[in-house]
Amino acid sequence: MYATILAGGVGTRLWPRSRQDRPKQFADITGDGVTMIQDTARRLAGLVPEERIYIVTGAAYAGLAIEQLPGVPASQILVEPTGRNTAPAIGLACMHLQRSDPTGVLAILPADHVILDGAGFRAALRRAAQVAANGYLVTLGIEPTFAHTGYGYIKRSQLIDDVDHLPAFHVERFLEKPTRTLAESFLVEGGYYWNGGIFVSRVDRMLAEIERQTPEMYARLQTIAAALDTPAAADVLAAEWRHMPSISIDYAVMEHAERVAVVPLQAGWNDVGSWDALETVLEQDERGNSIAKGEVLLLDSHNNIVYSDKRLVALINVSNLVVVDTGDTLLIGDKANMQRVKEVVEKLRAQGRTELL
Amino acid sequence: MYATILAGGVGTRLWPRSRQDRPKQFADITGDGVTMIQDTARRLAGLVPEERIYIVTGAAYAGLAIEQLPGVPASQILVEPTGRNTAPAIGLACMHLQRSDPTGVLAILPADHVILDGAGFRAALRRAAQVAANGYLVTLGIEPTFAHTGYGYIKRSQLIDDVDHLPAFHVERFLEKPTRTLAESFLVEGGYYWNGGIFVSRVDRMLAEIERQTPEMYARLQTIAAALDTPAAADVLAAEWRHMPSISIDYAVMEHAERVAVVPLQAGWNDVGSWDALETVLEQDERGNSIAKGEVLLLDSHNNIVYSDKRLVALINVSNLVVVDTGDTLLIGDKANMQRVKEVVEKLRAQGRTELL
Repeated sequence: MYATILAGGVGTRLWPRSRQDRPKQFADITGDGVTMIQDTARRLAGLVPEERIYIVTGAAYAGLAIEQLPGVPASQILVEPTGRNTAPAIGLACMHLQRSDPTGVLAILPADHVILDGAGFRAALRRAAQVAANGYLVTLGIEPTFAHTGYGYIKRSQLIDDVDHLPAFHVERFLEKPTRTLAESFLVEGGYYWNGGIFVSRVDRMLAEIERQTPEMYARLQTIAAALDTPAAADVLAAEWRHMPSISIDYAVMEHAERVAVVPLQAGWNDVGSWDALETVLEQDERGNSIAKGEVLLLDSHNNIVYSDKRLVALINVSNLVVVDTGDTLLIGDKANMQRVKEVVEKLRAQGRTELL
Repeated sequence: MYATILAGGVGTRLWPRSRQDRPKQFADITGDGVTMIQDTARRLAGLVPEERIYIVTGAAYAGLAIEQLPGVPASQILVEPTGRNTAPAIGLACMHLQRSDPTGVLAILPADHVILDGAGFRAALRRAAQVAANGYLVTLGIEPTFAHTGYGYIKRSQLIDDVDHLPAFHVERFLEKPTRTLAESFLVEGGYYWNGGIFVSRVDRMLAEIERQTPEMYARLQTIAAALDTPAAADVLAAEWRHMPSISIDYAVMEHAERVAVVPLQAGWNDVGSWDALETVLEQDERGNSIAKGEVLLLDSHNNIVYSDKRLVALINVSNLVVVDTGDTLLIGDKANMQRVKEVVEKLRAQGRTELL
C-alpha cells in the first residue's frame, strides 16, 4: 500500500498560526509538538512505511516537507508548479507510481486533518485497501455527528460485504454541500456520510477513470510521465501544468466513476476548519477550557480555547473566547465567530501587511 | 516652589505592566511613550524646574529615577532604606530642603497619577502655593465625579478667598474611605472632595507640624539631618529608618494640623487604580474601544481596552475586555473584574513565578 499526502493548500482559517510561508499542514495546531503533516504520516505507521509515501505540494513548501518528513524519499516529494486542485495532484502521484507498481493500492490523504483514533483509522484504511484491491474506488465516509452544511455528503447504497464489523457499501451518489434542512434530513434518513476527501484506489483504476472521464488531463499526465527522468522533466511539467484543468477529484473522477465504494469511518475525524474546532479535538478542563498549548492561569473563566506559543496567558472572568498568541500577532475572538478570521486576513492583505499573512 | 515626587510604591493592580522591578510609576501605562513619573515631572513645567524636584523612592528604583529624569540632580533622588508610608518620605524631603530654603513652598505629588488637563492642574497648584505661602497646609481636593468608595474625602468649610475663580477653603475634616451610602450622601450634600494625596506646604510649616504631632519621627529626621554630608549619612539613615514609624501623611499630620486648606482641582485627575481606569483617560473610537498602545484590528468589537507592546492584536466580536500584551505575559480580563489582577499576582507568587511579578 502507498499513500499520497495532499499538502498544497494555503488556508487562512487558522491564521495567525497558519501562514503563507507555513500553512497549517506544516504547523503544530493541536499543541502536541507535531505538525499536521507529521501527524498524517505517523498515523500510517504499520500500514504505509515512509518510503512509500508521496507528498504533493507547492514549490514554496517542498523544503518544509523534506524537513518535517525526512523519512520520505526526496524523489517522492512532488512539486506542483501551481495549485490545480486535487485531481491533477492525485494524477501526478499516480503517474509516478504507474512506473513501479501500477496495480499497487494508493491511499489519498489530506495533510491537515486531525484523527483522534489512529487505530480505528488504520482499520478502516486497511479495509478500504482490500476493497480497492478488488477494483473499487473507495472513499472513507465519515459518520456525521451533526447536520454540517460545510461538507459534501456520500450516500451509500447496497452492502458489498462486512469483514470484522467493518462494512463496505456501494455508493449511490456524491452530494454537494447541502442546505441546513437537507443536511438534517440526511441524518434522519441515515446512510449518509461526510466526504472528508480520503480515497483509496488501485493506481491503474484511478488512471483508467481519469483517462475515461477527463482525457485531456490524462493526456497531459502522460506527456509529463514520458519526460520523467529526462533533462526536460521540469520544463515539461511546467508547460503541461500551465494548461492543466483545475478540478477536484470529486468532480473529475469520483462522482461518475464506476465501482465506487464507501467504508465508514468513526475515528474522531476533524478537519479543524476553524479555531473553535480545536474544542472537539482537545481535552477540556473542569470548566470547559481547552488549552492547546501554553501556560494558562484562569480566574472564573469558562469554555475558552487558548493557544499560546510561549507566554503566560492570564484570563480573568472571560468565557467563550478563542485566544491565539503567536510570535507577532495576538488573535482574540468570540468562539461562535471564528470563521471571521478570513476577514481579518483580507483586511491585512488590503493593507499590504503581507508579513503578517 | 519645589516638588517632591513620591515614587516608592510597588503596586500590583496594573500587572503585568507594573512589575516588581519596574512599578507603574516607571512604566508607560497610557501608551504615550512617557512613563508616569516623567509625566508627573513634565506636568510641572513652568512651575517647578527639574533642578527643584526631589524624588523619594526605594533603592531598587533609584537607577530608574536617574535614567528617566536626568534633569533632576542625583543628590535629590532620596533613597528610603525601606518603605515607611508617606509621612517619613515627605519628612525626609523636608529635612533636605530645610538646609537651603526653609520657608520655600513644597508640592508633594504621587508619581503615578494621570492628570489630563495639565494647565488646569498647574493653575490649581500655583493657587495652592499662594495659600501655602501664607502658612497653610494645602491639599488639592479632587472634584468627585461619582460616589467612589476607594478614596478618602475632604470636607471643606468656609471660603478663605477666591482668586481668578480659584477658591481656597478651610478644611473641616478629612474622612476615611466611606461606605457607598455615605459617599452618595457626600455628593448630594456637596462640599466634599476626593483626597488624591497632593499637598502643598511651606517646608518649615510641614516640619513644625511633624514636630508637634509626631515628635518621635521629627527627632529621627533631625538625627538624619545632622549626619547629612558626613561619611556616616547612609548608616544613620538606615539606623533611624529601621525604627521609623510607618504612617501616612494624612494620619500623621494633615488630619489634626492647624491651618489646613483645600484648593479644588478639576483637571481630569485619575490614579489609574486598575486597568479599566484607562478608559477614563484615553480617547475612545466610535465603538467605545480604548487603544492605549499597539496596532489593533477590530471586527464588531466594542468597549474594549487594549495595551499591546508591539504585536498586532486582532479582535473578533468581543466586548468589554481588557487586553494587556507584554513581553512575557498576556492578560485578558472582563473589564468589570480587573481588580482581580491582584489575585493573579498572588497565585503567581504562590507558585514561585517571581520572574513574572
